[in-house]
This record gives sequence, C-alpha cells and structure tokens, in this order.
Amino acid sequence: MTYRAPVKDLLFCVKELAGIDHVAQLPGFDDAGFETAQAVIEESGKFCDGVVAPLNWSGDQNPAKWNNGVVTTSPGFKEAYKSLAEGGWLGVHQPTDFGGQGLPKTIGAACIEILVGSNLSFSLCAMLTGGAAEALITAGSEELQQRYLPKMIDGTWTGTMNLTEPQAGSDLALVRSKAVKQGDGSYRISGQKIFITYGEHDMSENIVHLVLARTPDAPEGVKGISLFVVPKFLVNEDGSVGKRNDVFCASLEHKLGIHGSPTAVLVFGDNKGDVGEGAIGYIVGEENRGLEYMFVMMNAARYDVGMQGIGLSDRAYQKAVEYARDRVQSRPVDGSQPGSAAIIHHPDVKRMLLTMRALTEGGRAMALVGAAAYDFAHHSPDAEVAKQNKAFYEYLVPLIKGYGTENSVEVASLGVQVHGGMGFIEETGAAQYYRDARILPIYEGTTAIQANDLVGRKTARDGGAVAKTIAAQIADLEGVLAGRESAAGKTLAKRLKAAREDFLAVVDFVVANVKAKPNDVFAGSVPYLFLASHLVAGWQMARALIVAEDKLKAGEDTEFFTAKVATARFFGDHILTRTASLRAAILEGADSVTTLPADLF
Amino acid sequence: MTYRAPVKDLLFCVKELAGIDHVAQLPGFDDAGFETAQAVIEESGKFCDGVVAPLNWSGDQNPAKWNNGVVTTSPGFKEAYKSLAEGGWLGVHQPTDFGGQGLPKTIGAACIEILVGSNLSFSLCAMLTGGAAEALITAGSEELQQRYLPKMIDGTWTGTMNLTEPQAGSDLALVRSKAVKQGDGSYRISGQKIFITYGEHDMSENIVHLVLARTPDAPEGVKGISLFVVPKFLVNEDGSVGKRNDVFCASLEHKLGIHGSPTAVLVFGDNKGDVGEGAIGYIVGEENRGLEYMFVMMNAARYDVGMQGIGLSDRAYQKAVEYARDRVQSRPVDGSQPGSAAIIHHPDVKRMLLTMRALTEGGRAMALVGAAAYDFAHHSPDAEVAKQNKAFYEYLVPLIKGYGTENSVEVASLGVQVHGGMGFIEETGAAQYYRDARILPIYEGTTAIQANDLVGRKTARDGGAVAKTIAAQIADLEGVLAGRESAAGKTLAKRLKAAREDFLAVVDFVVANVKAKPNDVFAGSVPYLFLASHLVAGWQMARALIVAEDKLKAGEDTEFFTAKVATARFFGDHILTRTASLRAAILEGADSVTTLPADLF
Repeated sequence: MTYRAPVKDLLFCVKELAGIDHVAQLPGFDDAGFETAQAVIEESGKFCDGVVAPLNWSGDQNPAKWNNGVVTTSPGFKEAYKSLAEGGWLGVHQPTDFGGQGLPKTIGAACIEILVGSNLSFSLCAMLTGGAAEALITAGSEELQQRYLPKMIDGTWTGTMNLTEPQAGSDLALVRSKAVKQGDGSYRISGQKIFITYGEHDMSENIVHLVLARTPDAPEGVKGISLFVVPKFLVNEDGSVGKRNDVFCASLEHKLGIHGSPTAVLVFGDNKGDVGEGAIGYIVGEENRGLEYMFVMMNAARYDVGMQGIGLSDRAYQKAVEYARDRVQSRPVDGSQPGSAAIIHHPDVKRMLLTMRALTEGGRAMALVGAAAYDFAHHSPDAEVAKQNKAFYEYLVPLIKGYGTENSVEVASLGVQVHGGMGFIEETGAAQYYRDARILPIYEGTTAIQANDLVGRKTARDGGAVAKTIAAQIADLEGVLAGRESAAGKTLAKRLKAAREDFLAVVDFVVANVKAKPNDVFAGSVPYLFLASHLVAGWQMARALIVAEDKLKAGEDTEFFTAKVATARFFGDHILTRTASLRAAILEGADSVTTLPADLF
Repeated sequence: MTYRAPVKDLLFCVKELAGIDHVAQLPGFDDAGFETAQAVIEESGKFCDGVVAPLNWSGDQNPAKWNNGVVTTSPGFKEAYKSLAEGGWLGVHQPTDFGGQGLPKTIGAACIEILVGSNLSFSLCAMLTGGAAEALITAGSEELQQRYLPKMIDGTWTGTMNLTEPQAGSDLALVRSKAVKQGDGSYRISGQKIFITYGEHDMSENIVHLVLARTPDAPEGVKGISLFVVPKFLVNEDGSVGKRNDVFCASLEHKLGIHGSPTAVLVFGDNKGDVGEGAIGYIVGEENRGLEYMFVMMNAARYDVGMQGIGLSDRAYQKAVEYARDRVQSRPVDGSQPGSAAIIHHPDVKRMLLTMRALTEGGRAMALVGAAAYDFAHHSPDAEVAKQNKAFYEYLVPLIKGYGTENSVEVASLGVQVHGGMGFIEETGAAQYYRDARILPIYEGTTAIQANDLVGRKTARDGGAVAKTIAAQIADLEGVLAGRESAAGKTLAKRLKAAREDFLAVVDFVVANVKAKPNDVFAGSVPYLFLASHLVAGWQMARALIVAEDKLKAGEDTEFFTAKVATARFFGDHILTRTASLRAAILEGADSVTTLPADLF
C-alpha cells in the first residue's frame, strides 16, 4: 500500500462540516450536492491511488533532469499528466466557460488534497496551472482568456507563476525584471526569475508564464509592478504554437525535497529564441496593478498549499500506521502480553500517531469549512451572507496555509520517529515526506508572512470583529457540548472555552497594540497564528464529535465514528491545550524577543 | 564562515554553572581547573574549526562508498582522523593508564560538543570508539584492555557497537546472533548486524567490533545476551594485525542524513576471511551479562548523542544568524527605516533565532552541569556526595539525550525557515542540518526509550525522590531570583515556579499511577521528559542569568552577558511557558491516547 485517498473523512467533512448540500443550493451549483461530491471524490481517489501515487517515490529518486535548457521530467509524469487532464481533473472547480466543471471549491479542495497526497511533486504542475488560470480569469482580457484558458484547463498547456528574483523573495517591492512596451501593444520582458516551479518541462506543448515585471516609468516599490503573460512558444492566430519565445531555463535547483518537481531558474531576454531580443509578453489587466492580480492567484495558491500540508500529513500518517502495525518490538508496558507486541500497542506510539491524525483531521476540517465559506462568498445571492463568508474565508486563509504546512513538518517528523531507525533509511519512504514537507511553510508566503497577514489585514483592520464573531460561534458550541451527556463532549467544552479565552485575550492585545507597539505584536504573530488555528480546528473537531456521537447512537459506521470521537477528544486534550503556553508567550514575551540588538545574536 | 566553536559559552557553562574549579579539587583532577579547561577548549575549537568543520559539507555531498566489501570514506576524513588522534583529542577524558589525558568529563563533554558541531558525521567514528573503549574499561579482562585500548585511544584502531539486527532494534531481547565457545576459550560468532556506524571504513588499520550475541545454552530474552570483542583483523602476539576475521560489510545504507558516516550491514560467519567459518570473538566479562555492560557504553553514548544535538543546534543557529544579518528583505514593521532591512531586524526572525539560541544554550547548560555531576559521582571521596551526584546524573541522562536531540530537530527546522526559499536549496547548507538532526532522537534509544527510562528507573523506582530534590533546589533559586532587583529575575522566578509546580504534579502522577495504570503514565512519558527538561534547563538558565547580571554590574564583557540575560529571559517567557500545556496533556490526556483500539487507527 503506498497511499489510499482518505475518501471517507473527506466526504464526512464535505457533508457534515462544510455542508455541501447547502452549498449546492447556491446559484450555479445546482447538481453539486453530496451525491456529486461522493461520485467525484471517490473517482478522484481511484484515479490518484492508481495512477499518480505510484510515481511518488520514483519521482523522488529520479528527479527532473536539465540538459542544455531542456528539462526531462521524472519517468511517468508526462503520461500521468495527460491522464489527469483527460479525466477532467484539471478543471474541477474552473468555470464551465473555459472547459472546467464549475464545481464548488468545497468539492474541488477535496480533490486537491487527494492529488497532493498521492504525489506532491507531481501535483504542483496542475496547481500552478490552476493559479495562473485564476489570474487570467480575474484580470486577463477576453482575448487572453480565450487564447490561453481552454488549453490550460484541458492540459495541453501548463502555467507558472514568476514572482521571485534573487533579491526579491518575500519582498516583491524589490522586483527588477523589466517590461518595455512595443508599438503593437505587446511588451519585451527581460530579467531573471528563480524558484519557478515547473518553469521548464516536457509535460505539455507550451508553458504559459505569468511574470511580474516593471515598465520603465513605473513607480518604485509594489505599486510599480505589472503582470504579463509570457508564453514559452508564441501562439499563432489559429491557436497553434509558433515561434520559440526568448525565455529559457538556465538551471534546475538541487533541493532538499519535492525532487520530482523541477524548480527552474528562468532567464528572459537573452536573445536565444526566434523572436529577437526580449521575451514577448502581454499585459494582464492594467499596468502597475500586477501585485493586486497576483494576490488573487496567491490567495488561491495559499489555500492550496495548506491543502498540500494536509495531504502530505495524511500520507505520512498512513505510512506510519502501516509500519506500527507490522513492526513487532518490546513487551507492552502493562504486561498484557508476554512477548513482544506490534509497536502500535505502545502508548507513546499511539500518542505520536494520534498527534499526526488529529493535526491532519483538524486541518482538513478547517480547510473544507473554509472552502464552503469561499463558495458562499462567491455565489450567495444574499450580499450580507456573501460578505460575512468572504470575511470568514479571508481570516481562515493564513490559518489554513500556516497551520496546514507547519503541521505537516511536525507530522512528517513524527512519522520518521514512529519508524525508528528504518525511518532514516531513504528506501523506507518516510524520510521523503519529512524532506518534502519542509518547503510548505516557506513557499507562497512563509509562515511569518501568513502571520503578518493575519495580524494586519485580518485582525487589526476590522478591530478584531471577524475574530470575535468566530469566538462567539465557538462559545455557542461550548454550550451545546456542555449540555451533552458524554464525557468527551464536556471535556471538549472545557478545552474550547480555555482556548477561546486565550484567543480573545490575544486578539485584544493585537488590536490594542498593533499601532503603538508593532514590534511587540509581530513578535507574537506566528504564535497567534498557531493559537487561532488550534482553536478554529478544535472547533471543527468539536462539531465533528457531536455528529460522530449521534451517528454512533444511530448505529452508523461504528468504526469510523468511534475513531472520530477518539481523535476529536485527543485534539482537545493534546492540541487545544497548547494554547495556554502560546498565550503567555504572546502577551508577556514580546520584550524578550525584541530587546536583544541584532549585533549581539 | 562555516562554524565557529562556541568557546565562550562553553567556558561560561564549565566555569560558572558546572563549577570546574570544584571539580578540579576531586582526587585525580589536580590540574584540571578553569585554566586547563580554557586551554583545552580553546585549542579544541581551533583544531575543529580549522581541520574538521571544512569537511562537513563535502562529506555530505561525497558519502562513503562501498565496493565489494571495501568502504572508502569521504575525502579528507582519513587524514583528519589521523590529525585528531595525533592531537590527543580521542583520549581527552579517557584514563591515563591507556594513553588518555584523564581530564574531567566536564571538559571532555565541551570538546565533544565542538567536535560534533564541527562535523557530526565525522565525529561519530571517534564517539563510537570512545563508547567501545568505555565498555572494555568497564568489563574487559586486563588482557583485552592491554591489547585493544591503547591503540583505540591513540587512533590506530577504531571501535563500533554492534547491537541492532533487523528484528531487534529497541528490543534487544530479540537478538539472534550466535556465539559458540571454542576449545581455546574464544568464540565463533555468526549473524547479521545492521545500522553499524563506521562498521567498515578506511580510516584505521583495524576495527574493534563490540558485538552482542547469544551462546547456544543462553536463557531467552535480555538475560541471555553476551558481549564480545570481534576485531576486523586478528591481533598477533606482538600487537600487529594478522588474519582477516570472518566479518564483512555487505552494504552501506542510503540515509536521509549524516551521509559522511558509513552505516554498515555487517555479516559475521560467512566464511569469507582467513580464519575459517565464524568470526573469532573474545568474551567481554562474563557470559549473559552483555546487556549490563552494553548499558554502561550506552549511557555514555546517550550523553554524547545529547551533545550531538546541542552541537548541531549551535551550528544551525550560527548559519541562520549569518544569513539573517546578510539578507535584506522588507521594511521593518515599526517603520523605523524607509527601505528594506536585514531580516534579523524583523520580530519573527528574532523570535526564531532566539528560540534556536535558547534551546541550544539551555541544553548545553544542563548537559555540562550533568557532566560535573558525573565527575563528582565517579571521583568524590565522600560516598554520600558521590551517591547524590550519581542519582542526579542518572536522572539527567534521558533528559540530555531526549531534549538535546528533539530540540536539534526543532532548531534545524527553524534554521531552514529563517533562510526562506534558500533554506530548501541543498547548496545553502541549512538543509543538511535538518536532515542530519533527524537521526538523533532515534539512535542510542529513541525519545520514547529515554522517556521509559525516565519514568521507570529514574522516577518511579525511588518514588520521585531525585525529582523532588531537584524541585527543592529550584524552589530555593526562585527565592533568590524573586529577591533580586531586576525585572528579568522576578519574571524568571515566576516562570520557574509555575513550571516546577507543573513538574511536581506530573511526578506525583507518575509515581502514583505507574503500577496501577502503566498505560496512562507511559502515554505521557515523552511529554514528561520535555516538561522535566524545560524545567531543568530553565533552572540552569536562571542560574546563568544571575551570574550574567552580576558580571554586567561589574562591567565585564557587556556584549556576552547582555546576550546571556536576554536569552535566559527568552527561555523563561517562551520555553518554560510550554510546561502548562504539557501538564494538562499528561494529567488529563491519557484516556484519549489509550482508548482507540489499534485496528481503528
């Protein structure tokens, strides 16, 4: 067994927590209720388990190769991408206008988890293409949309995001690539971009680069950045590919993980193609508004990277459980068995596995509830409902990204630990997840960048209003839980209450001090992100507990719901309890972060 | 700059916290006071910075190679090992009888941190040799000692520990290798051992394997294991090496990290050498007492592996600080500067760096205080003092090992994060520490094994007496801190008090429940290890704070002591505060670990 898509838990979250049948009542989603979700998610699981997952380890061991500008991807990737496209999996929640299926994000996000869980490196090509498509849908002219989107969604072409330059990582104000307008309205682009995922490869007949660059008279900083489409091959009037554009791959990076994903250095304007000097590009939207459009794409990408963390966590969990069931070592501490037992019977192994499981399920529940909020925000005919859901979704994005990815590092590390010495041997496979996971809290905005967003745009800007709305909903749920008969319900009520109080104290601190003492607030920004995430994920696990207990009473799927109750309870006792320490560090620990001068480190 | 031995902080810990001048008053350590410590540690730093550290990255990129049983180590390793031996660095705290320098462990341990920090993979050969020597010193016959020890300590030969077999990792009861006694008193050994660090290599003229195996009539389980010396080449009467013994390296493992360290599969008794079938071995001590002897060696090794975590953490910290000083990105959140700033000025980067620094310094302080306790335990003429120190040291060993190594994973991971995208690029070097660190919480006993030791032998056996003695000393220190003028002192007093109360509650829980509810106690064993470690390390940081504040008042080394005060304070606010969450998880979270049946994971 390499990977089995967690179809059952995805469907549980989609149905019981995200409320797909409510989502399906929104205009445009007529047939997209639970039955559709079930059909799509099950089919996605079958496809990814069968076609994509088996290429995960081989892709790690046989990375993409660069030879004189030409990149050959890992064996099987090209064919699998073709199958992925043919199955319609690239367009699950893309608009039907351009060949997508137009399904809710609530369903699309579940499919994304399955794709990334089955093969993170492989999945990135599809995800970047989706992000590039999203930017074109948002801001591209009709001509650009018609010319590029259908072929990106049907898999004939792929897309990339070209943001980073050597001196411009998190700080896009420092972008230097140039774009000079030509007589025909096109631009000539020159400059160097690094860390371009699938920036060059052999999986499609063309690559549609979306590139941030500056026009000669642009203002300094982020207000002078424009967004361009720069295709690897120019597109002829009839839609066929034509001349080779002046953008070339100078090298691929030698990375810690995601070896199957080629990370390119791209050089624009070295006069190497068939078009003369300067890569030909086409403006997306208006000049100097590039960052704004890119943010649309980045917000979608941030959500998806959160899902990458969750998918990878599930895979690491599955692997660790399998090993823990097979590996026989040492007698049980309670003497319940005379000889050595499978290590899954040892309490600390259970604790590690449950930590992995709780973080994964909590992250998933939060992310899928977020997806439903996105669907309401974009499709609800009620402006107030749409607005509330938009605010809620936007609050969740840094949590989904930051928490899902940081947790994947913890989960993958625990996965290695469960394997003992075998975990350190590459052929076992657990180490790959540990290597792969490490990029997730970095790309598409580091955890600190997510936390800045959470503090600034998502908390301070509205005076903590959205945060307090969330807290109020949690308080209501505490009442429901406390009134239930089960010990688990009462315990979770207590845990949620304590965590919520920690959260509110921190929100107040952030709102009160962000202007007067910004260093103090940002010294605790990442701990705040964790605290908020534990709470929101714990809230969803508590909702899951209620459903699961009721289903158990009704005699439904005893195994699944017993495990759900246990996992929710574990989340309460072992994850929600982490908030007390975070609160203290945030409220009382700022001075000890900021006092030491930089030269004394 | 690749690595600079943290000589100043090591000397601070050795002098002010471990009290080397008291240690030097013990019989046998006459000249080993602060001046000796300073000379040795500074010299060690110069040697390792200059000779050993530069081979760290090249060793990672050019791992040892296997070819038909012959192993060629990474370029430069052989020559560096020769220099290490010639400098006397292999015998720093080995007995003078066999060519060692006979210095206190308090000094030897500091040298070990420097060696591992400069090059973890390289250091393992020396450390395993030291461990093997320790077993021979403990239980070997005089003949074995005279024949093997001097050449192991002078670097002509190296040593290994052969414990693990495919079915026997943490659980040595499952060892199957066989030893059959011959007419001449020697034994013939057969079997397969895996994960043998430096089990085969080209750095010395002979390799002295210490091997666990069973005699034909041995009792089952750990009570039937004996320990043997099995040299790669038999040793002639005149001490020269003779016939090739029947032990061969079948392969090297392909590992996540420590690539420079060859990890061998060794096959004993395949009739491939010059001695007929079965590797010739010599019993160490008595039959069936092998595990007992091995434990002596393992306890020394566990301490050293804790030091590996600390050394690696310091290296990762140094690298991250260097990058954070150089990398310019984004404006300060407080608007103190119009353009982009070096990222070390951003609060979250400071928080990450201080977390790395505090965990490293806290672990180091605890470990060196432990080393002094070892010296008192083994050298004090006062039996009561020796006994108390032995108990204290033994309590600390699982903490030093578990905490030092788990922290190194957290620290190395933060180190990658500080580097952003560059951290994921192998050539940057930060990723190597993240890969290397991952083995440390696994080998020489996983963290769970350390925690079992802490719960069983170190806490339950004496009814928590040693733990409570530690708590009482901390309570005394709280009084001292609370009476000081500084805000930092008062805050640390508060933090220590809270952590100590958490600790005592957990110790009581462990003692009260370990027999009746072992699963509940062991469900919290690793969290207990962390809690105890935070407290003991925090205690040492609080002692450091007092010294540092007084030195500052006296106008001594303002930079160093200002940083020490800040780090101690950060430890209080951001690390000691972690105990509240651990306490809750331990005392109230056992059910949620143990309830879920193994087949529902």
